[in-house]
Amino acid sequence: MIRKTRLFTPGPTPLLPAAQFAMAAADIHHRTPEFRALYERVLGQLKTFVGTKNDVLLLASSGTGAMEAAVSNLTSPGDRVLVLSAGKFGERWEALTKAFGCQVDLVSAPYGETLAPSEVKKALRPETKAVFVQATESSTGVRHDIQGIGRLLGESGSEALLIVDGITGLGTTKLDVDGWGVDVIIGGSQKAVMIPPGLAYLSLSERAWKAAETSKNPRYYFDLKKELKNAKKGESSYTPAVALIAALGAALDYIAVQGGGDLAAGRDALVENAETCAAMTRAAVEALGLKLFAPSAPSAAATAVLPPAGVDSGVIVKELKSRFAAIVTNGQGEMKGRIFRIAHIGLFDYMDTIAIIGALEQVAAANLNLPGFAFGQALAAAQQVFAERSAPAKTEKAPEPELAKA
Amino acid sequence: MIRKTRLFTPGPTPLLPAAQFAMAAADIHHRTPEFRALYERVLGQLKTFVGTKNDVLLLASSGTGAMEAAVSNLTSPGDRVLVLSAGKFGERWEALTKAFGCQVDLVSAPYGETLAPSEVKKALRPETKAVFVQATESSTGVRHDIQGIGRLLGESGSEALLIVDGITGLGTTKLDVDGWGVDVIIGGSQKAVMIPPGLAYLSLSERAWKAAETSKNPRYYFDLKKELKNAKKGESSYTPAVALIAALGAALDYIAVQGGGDLAAGRDALVENAETCAAMTRAAVEALGLKLFAPSAPSAAATAVLPPAGVDSGVIVKELKSRFAAIVTNGQGEMKGRIFRIAHIGLFDYMDTIAIIGALEQVAAANLNLPGFAFGQALAAAQQVFAERSAPAKTEKAPEPELAKA
Repeated sequence: MIRKTRLFTPGPTPLLPAAQFAMAAADIHHRTPEFRALYERVLGQLKTFVGTKNDVLLLASSGTGAMEAAVSNLTSPGDRVLVLSAGKFGERWEALTKAFGCQVDLVSAPYGETLAPSEVKKALRPETKAVFVQATESSTGVRHDIQGIGRLLGESGSEALLIVDGITGLGTTKLDVDGWGVDVIIGGSQKAVMIPPGLAYLSLSERAWKAAETSKNPRYYFDLKKELKNAKKGESSYTPAVALIAALGAALDYIAVQGGGDLAAGRDALVENAETCAAMTRAAVEALGLKLFAPSAPSAAATAVLPPAGVDSGVIVKELKSRFAAIVTNGQGEMKGRIFRIAHIGLFDYMDTIAIIGALEQVAAANLNLPGFAFGQALAAAQQVFAERSAPAKTEKAPEPELAKA
Repeated sequence: MIRKTRLFTPGPTPLLPAAQFAMAAADIHHRTPEFRALYERVLGQLKTFVGTKNDVLLLASSGTGAMEAAVSNLTSPGDRVLVLSAGKFGERWEALTKAFGCQVDLVSAPYGETLAPSEVKKALRPETKAVFVQATESSTGVRHDIQGIGRLLGESGSEALLIVDGITGLGTTKLDVDGWGVDVIIGGSQKAVMIPPGLAYLSLSERAWKAAETSKNPRYYFDLKKELKNAKKGESSYTPAVALIAALGAALDYIAVQGGGDLAAGRDALVENAETCAAMTRAAVEALGLKLFAPSAPSAAATAVLPPAGVDSGVIVKELKSRFAAIVTNGQGEMKGRIFRIAHIGLFDYMDTIAIIGALEQVAAANLNLPGFAFGQALAAAQQVFAERSAPAKTEKAPEPELAKA
């Protein structure tokens, strides 16, 4: 049977066709007025997408490059920093801060759980310069309470910068960057913005820019101060990834359309979209009798699922791929074989979600020997969730007061 | 929520990405060795796809253009012809043959039914020059028995040409063109070959080419003898639709991949694919308690469904479009409002099929008030069909005799 390859991975995510075509058409030089106009437009759109009054910078790198930029520009060797870690990407903050000579305090949560605010509070020292955390830890499918951590920092009187990896969180999770006191927010292109890997973006608060003044780490490619100076002229410090930037512009246009022409509303709609896909998936998985790996604080970026006892999750990943060309991800590192992950970041709709649940039912029927299994049960649970989530939207369409008067 | 537009229409059908890219890249002139090489390759592939030893010709026109070519090249004014009609496309044969001055005998079946062979036999006269029919009548979702009609013509000793519109039948329905005595077979680009509209193709048997010698109809653009002469040199008579031909080559390559590198096997796999999608859809529709419009001879090209009593089928078409961006078609002409049609032609897979059934369940829940409706029932019926159809394929993979011996 025909099998169309479909990514259900937490990055890369499915590509937006309009962005693919913009990318293919981007045959322009980067030191020209045409490129400067594109670059300034996209940087402006990113500010709205991120939801910050601060400048957003674009880097030709993966998300990890922007994570490194945050460390190398905002810390100095010997600085005391606090890393909050609950998975592979938390561990990356630890590795990065150590690589740049920080003294690292670590608060970790077991894989599948989020961080206890009391532990974070306890670990905070007067000399802590920065706190590093993920908005969503896509290796385990968990969401961290950035608002709570920001509040805790504010209440404690700490001057530590709050540095948030929002690579899979932006566009899948509500993030009030400026309102919650996030000093650095980091995103990547192959995530909710629906384009291929190769671009990272980040923004720094005023406090963060001040910290950059005193940082003593060596850096060149990721020199954010230089990048900002150039960005203000519509330039990048080094050759920018032109085609990806054109694609990003097209994708942000598409996201604005989802918000009726308003990019911030479109970003919020994208978050709600991910939440609906995630809620459908969670209901389906539980109807199958499978357990969620992160039930207490599930992220809408990706749903991590435990296979039945005695089954390697790789079997499910492999069957979904070989029978349906549906690409979901295994656990990473020590979680390999122990979970599988279905992502909801970016360009997924109701039909994609029903389809992956259908395929999962087929794999369950053929390979999982689940007690009480019957075709349609997981699908029915997802259908019910979708019907409930879409029903209120209709009743909200009450006559608008102004029109009713007219 | 995000809604990706998805066509479930009996043409245009979903585009193959590889064909889209080939189309975008086709910046070549048509009177060059590069184009001739492409054209000859595609014409050769089409012979295999159609399944005939005869030459296949390509025309820059819609399928109707090739239907006209069959009439204008193979009949003369005053010729007695037999038109077999069971829907809008059968009626098109009637209109075309009349437009070119034929004396038309008509055998019609009610919409939703196929033709009774006894009626066809009765209508055949010694002087009948040609019989015109559809392989599948996509306006009603019915399949006609081309093999039976071919056999009937052979047994009757009739010299009438059998002229078959296979526009939606090719690639969705088994058609042994040469073996069944089909003299003319006609296809279109926006169907099972997964590319946009704009190309038609057809092949003529030796008997049909002989008839073309004596035809007295005026024709110029659709002069098939001239087209054949040029095709043999790798040329088209008039400017060919270059980009679509490049797309067609890429699509036929893809279909060959579906057959493990064998285009005929790929075509057969495509037919089986459509049959699986159609069988899943029929089971789902019946599980909803809805009635098929063509239950006695359902086509795998499209499934036509009757809405519940008192419901305009346009409501279902509209809801699927507005809520899910899933485009299905209403009935045509007098069937408008009385049926809706879900197509299975070309690039549809299991996941597309589950997804449209899921969307149909949502519309049923919100709009159809079906007795005993519950989420998951239609999906479960489709799941069962898919599981049954995919299970035997596994057991067929028994050790091959040759390998077992080695």
